[in-house]
Amino acid sequence: MTYRIDCLQYCNWSEDIFRQMREGGLDAVHVTISYHENFRETVLNVEQWNRWFEQHPDLIMKGRWASDVKLAHDTGRTAIFFGFQNPSPIEDDIGLVEVWHDLGARFMQLTYNNQSLLATGCYEDEDPGLTRMGKQVIREMNRVGLVVDMSHSADRSTIEAADHSERPIAITHANPFDWHAARRNKPDDVIRAVVQNGGMMGFSIYPHHLAGGSDCTLKGFCQMIADTAERYGVTHFGIGSDLCQNQPDSVVEWMRVGRWTKEIDYGEGSAANPGFPKQPYWFHTNADFPRLEEGLKEVGFNAREIADIMGDNWFRFFEKNFVPSDG
Amino acid sequence: MTYRIDCLQYCNWSEDIFRQMREGGLDAVHVTISYHENFRETVLNVEQWNRWFEQHPDLIMKGRWASDVKLAHDTGRTAIFFGFQNPSPIEDDIGLVEVWHDLGARFMQLTYNNQSLLATGCYEDEDPGLTRMGKQVIREMNRVGLVVDMSHSADRSTIEAADHSERPIAITHANPFDWHAARRNKPDDVIRAVVQNGGMMGFSIYPHHLAGGSDCTLKGFCQMIADTAERYGVTHFGIGSDLCQNQPDSVVEWMRVGRWTKEIDYGEGSAANPGFPKQPYWFHTNADFPRLEEGLKEVGFNAREIADIMGDNWFRFFEKNFVPSDG
Repeated sequence: MTYRIDCLQYCNWSEDIFRQMREGGLDAVHVTISYHENFRETVLNVEQWNRWFEQHPDLIMKGRWASDVKLAHDTGRTAIFFGFQNPSPIEDDIGLVEVWHDLGARFMQLTYNNQSLLATGCYEDEDPGLTRMGKQVIREMNRVGLVVDMSHSADRSTIEAADHSERPIAITHANPFDWHAARRNKPDDVIRAVVQNGGMMGFSIYPHHLAGGSDCTLKGFCQMIADTAERYGVTHFGIGSDLCQNQPDSVVEWMRVGRWTKEIDYGEGSAANPGFPKQPYWFHTNADFPRLEEGLKEVGFNAREIADIMGDNWFRFFEKNFVPSDG
Repeated sequence: MTYRIDCLQYCNWSEDIFRQMREGGLDAVHVTISYHENFRETVLNVEQWNRWFEQHPDLIMKGRWASDVKLAHDTGRTAIFFGFQNPSPIEDDIGLVEVWHDLGARFMQLTYNNQSLLATGCYEDEDPGLTRMGKQVIREMNRVGLVVDMSHSADRSTIEAADHSERPIAITHANPFDWHAARRNKPDDVIRAVVQNGGMMGFSIYPHHLAGGSDCTLKGFCQMIADTAERYGVTHFGIGSDLCQNQPDSVVEWMRVGRWTKEIDYGEGSAANPGFPKQPYWFHTNADFPRLEEGLKEVGFNAREIADIMGDNWFRFFEKNFVPSDG
């Protein structure tokens, strides 16, 4: 078994991009279907995806279970798995956790930069950890098979989530803080808390998460992967590229600002650099995915390790964590 | 294979009723989860069922596919299939048809007594037939595997739905008009249009649909079934008892009035008899289901025919019509 999986993208989806997924040999992609959208708005995003599944049955299919990754692979398509970067789709209603799992959601971030009803985001000054509702929702997510994703959460909240959760959690898209001191990257104790409970982290190629930013080289990125794998064990890591291909800058503004402020918040950007950052030369589209394998080979990984990082680790994680705890 | 299936109930659900389902040997029940509720309100009803599934895993389970009837049978439980008596859960959004199929809905009436966005109800003075949106929604229901149910629809609309639909449709709960001239019962040309396209009708035990009302005897009911089976063929019929056990009269008022009028509408009742009618002595709870078999035997059905009427016909219908047309 060798699968290619990207565990986080939010592109301006089109037939072109679906064709690039096929060109890049992606068997599965975890796509974001909510940043700030409430329940009904996120359902509209599901409806949009259903139209794409109907219009492009030769390129993509809805992903629900790990077995769909295999099915997609065997039929030359890419399985699309849904996730949220914010718990806004469950609003204040824990019953929506199971409803969303039924609708195909497989990852939910407990926060997106800000404090949520569940936990604290990585841009808040204070991090009081999991809330009362947060603990209840994690238990319910564990029960139904919706994975806790702490990519945009603050550190204490993330460590508490990893400990409180009875099933492994994920950081779908981030890099080690020790490599590049960005607010979204994760310090040693956070990574340890996640991986020691069987959790996974996906390496991000979003320039603000890279040492050197847009100028980060493929070799530099892959050397970081090698160093991280050596430190924590290769089995806990995959790719979560955070590819936001073809999105206008109004979208990164929506991600950062949503409806929570009337002012501009630059997030990881700045007044001088408010839009999407320029991608590194070696990763512009899904078709560039095979390049990562070349880079990993160059820094000394063997074929088995490369396959694990490129998708097989995520595949095993999907196998264990998407099914209900009683199923 | 011998399954017992009731293809329409709307009880005031409780553990007692779930135990009576087991006592009556029901392998599957199609339950109404919306009369007038909009999308979000109907999702709340799904959430309530999810709690019951969680609380009573030894008695009931969620039904999605015909195979779940078998699974329920083999594990001594009753599979619960969701349906709507009104298209209100899709509001004005055709994309919600597939969303609802994902959430487990398997039957949707195009109307409940009144004109809807899709077709005409059986209490309107005029029946102009399927609307533009109605035709589109039937096609979408055919695609995803959501069965068109015309129990509360007007006759022309029903015949047009049977003809327009590329897959068989259902009248889950009604009786022949020729037996009892109630507005909700179905004349010969309607029954013919439904069954000649492979459709099914479930016999109702709701007193307003019975010749003699609450005083209808088991023998009279079963003789009607025998006459109907002889006229149209036994393979097209099952039970849709319309059991509304333990419901307060405020619920039948909600069914009839919803939010569409400020006046009282008595529907099949009257000012003198505004509440739920008294059940016939031979059918009060799910535990009475085996009595129907005795009654069917008495009017001359053989064991195979009894099994077909008591559930196997519905089972075969579920097998064919709950799956997507491309699956």
